Amino acid sequence: MQKTIDPWGSGLVEDYVKLIKDFGLEEFDKAGFPDPNRLMRRHVVFSGRDLGLISMCIKEKKPYYVLSGIMPSAERLHFGNKMVIEQVKYFQEHNAKTYVLVADLEAASTRGITLEEAQKRAKEFHIPAWIALGLNPKKTIFYFQSQNKDVMHLAYKFAKKITLNEFRAIYGQADPSRIFAALTQAGDILYPQLEERMPGIIPVGVDQDPHLRLTRDIVSRSKSEKFFAPSSIYHKFTPSLNGAIKMSKSSPDSCIELPEDLASVKKKIMRAFTGGRATLEEHRRLGAEVEKCMVFELLKQHLVEDDKELDKIYHEYKSGKMTSGEIKQLCYEKMEKFLNNFVKNIEKARKEVDKLRFVKFG
Amino acid sequence: MQKTIDPWGSGLVEDYVKLIKDFGLEEFDKAGFPDPNRLMRRHVVFSGRDLGLISMCIKEKKPYYVLSGIMPSAERLHFGNKMVIEQVKYFQEHNAKTYVLVADLEAASTRGITLEEAQKRAKEFHIPAWIALGLNPKKTIFYFQSQNKDVMHLAYKFAKKITLNEFRAIYGQADPSRIFAALTQAGDILYPQLEERMPGIIPVGVDQDPHLRLTRDIVSRSKSEKFFAPSSIYHKFTPSLNGAIKMSKSSPDSCIELPEDLASVKKKIMRAFTGGRATLEEHRRLGAEVEKCMVFELLKQHLVEDDKELDKIYHEYKSGKMTSGEIKQLCYEKMEKFLNNFVKNIEKARKEVDKLRFVKFG
Repeated sequence: MQKTIDPWGSGLVEDYVKLIKDFGLEEFDKAGFPDPNRLMRRHVVFSGRDLGLISMCIKEKKPYYVLSGIMPSAERLHFGNKMVIEQVKYFQEHNAKTYVLVADLEAASTRGITLEEAQKRAKEFHIPAWIALGLNPKKTIFYFQSQNKDVMHLAYKFAKKITLNEFRAIYGQADPSRIFAALTQAGDILYPQLEERMPGIIPVGVDQDPHLRLTRDIVSRSKSEKFFAPSSIYHKFTPSLNGAIKMSKSSPDSCIELPEDLASVKKKIMRAFTGGRATLEEHRRLGAEVEKCMVFELLKQHLVEDDKELDKIYHEYKSGKMTSGEIKQLCYEKMEKFLNNFVKNIEKARKEVDKLRFVKFG
Repeated sequence: MQKTIDPWGSGLVEDYVKLIKDFGLEEFDKAGFPDPNRLMRRHVVFSGRDLGLISMCIKEKKPYYVLSGIMPSAERLHFGNKMVIEQVKYFQEHNAKTYVLVADLEAASTRGITLEEAQKRAKEFHIPAWIALGLNPKKTIFYFQSQNKDVMHLAYKFAKKITLNEFRAIYGQADPSRIFAALTQAGDILYPQLEERMPGIIPVGVDQDPHLRLTRDIVSRSKSEKFFAPSSIYHKFTPSLNGAIKMSKSSPDSCIELPEDLASVKKKIMRAFTGGRATLEEHRRLGAEVEKCMVFELLKQHLVEDDKELDKIYHEYKSGKMTSGEIKQLCYEKMEKFLNNFVKNIEKARKEVDKLRFVKFG
């Protein structure tokens, strides 16, 4: 039986190396990418598909695109979204034509909000938040799924390219609403190539790989359109503060939202699973188990930009010189600064939203 | 196991009475409908769903709509289309707001033609042909499926209202492309109610009942939108000239197309299955088996408007006074006149197409 990853569920992925093997992913090699960002340098970005094609486009300055989507039903962002945005930013800064779509159709279907409400939330919160996290709005093409007839036409057309059993093999299930959502997403992924045929890259959490497999299968069966199969680049999950592999809203204590009020953030960090030992004496003698420490992971993945600074924290903690209380305090201080900045930048970005380049459809 | 009718296939329906019973249809009672048309008077229209609601709208002059669709991939029409158009015409003349959509998305998906080609064919042939067969274009709202975002949004939304197993129970299968086509069709059927909530009627061949069952199920699960469940009105198939229950393009000799060249039509009628006896002597003595005669069926369903004239033919043939050769000749003469008229009227209608009221979508 073929294994499946469920991009909609909260299934845990226990072994990234195994994932690479089971799903035929490539290992990410930062050597292919000039000026790798924090996530690339620190093995948070760990695999992908057809990465060489994008690496070539960057190095030879050939046209390519990066695409990502906003799910506007969510009330807030989380650190997984932050990673996606940072990846989009990386490619945007390396000459990718940048598309960000608002999945208002999917939000309306899965969350029961109206399209208008979904669009309003995207404009009032999500798009400003993306800008606050580094997206350059002047170099980004935005669109609403529900207004992009080409995307809906592609979805309808692609339905002919896949059987129910193939769909089930990829997703583990095949409800009509899942079929609509997945094929519309395939339409989104390939839509930029209707304007200009070129390679494209989709940065996502590895749990989204099924959408890429579906889209790549569709491309291989759409000989007449001659789409480039989309490349993808995968990051690991932001680990849950309680030590689970993925932050999850269904377990709120495990997860810091963006934004979230500071008292609540402080409480969560202070309760987080660390690499500390049972007693202070033992901690000083043996040093922390840094690899198990969720607080260090947060610092590494999100809060410390400078490699040398991170290295110093690592060694002080590893050697037992820094205690778990101290690393939590450090983490909270950095988080406080980051969140305050984020909220301030959202406010600023909100004022620019009406000036953005939304695609107009005839 | 639940029975299914396959609206895409050519499965034969052997017993209309059984159909009514198995699928819980209503028997059509012409008493509810003022000035019943030829198809209604002659039991060609035989059943439907929620007919009383429409009958009431007609009698009390309440708003309601009639909707039908054009499949523009077809090169020509056939007599089944002609019946649908005559039914649409009946309701149009009885105050129904009239919608005719061009299923360009479905045509592109199932026939592999482009949307542009589908739209071109609709404008150059199908819409003029519908007008030639009696549709009043000035009182009709036309739209292309691919340009109607509301319809595509409804389809996406409706996907949430039906499970894969329910879909399979209705259609006997559940390929992704079928799911898209069926849910888009449900979107078409209910779209007029986004503009004005009111009852609506869909005249179709009984093989299309699954689409109505699907749409009615969706309505019953969409409490918040408060759609009226669509009514439907079903006609029998135009029988095949070789005696099969349904004219079918896969058996070209059984089927007269609209238009078709007269030499070919003549050949087909002359070869048709009649109610004639083995010898002329026997025919004169026993009379024709009118109920088995496909030529009489054509006259009854399509070519003789006047009930008295049809009655006369019936009795002359039944009594053996009219031979099978004679009824074939009569049928051909009427067909020739009808086809010549049809071609002439298409030419005339073609000139009006650019003036029609196509819905513009923002």
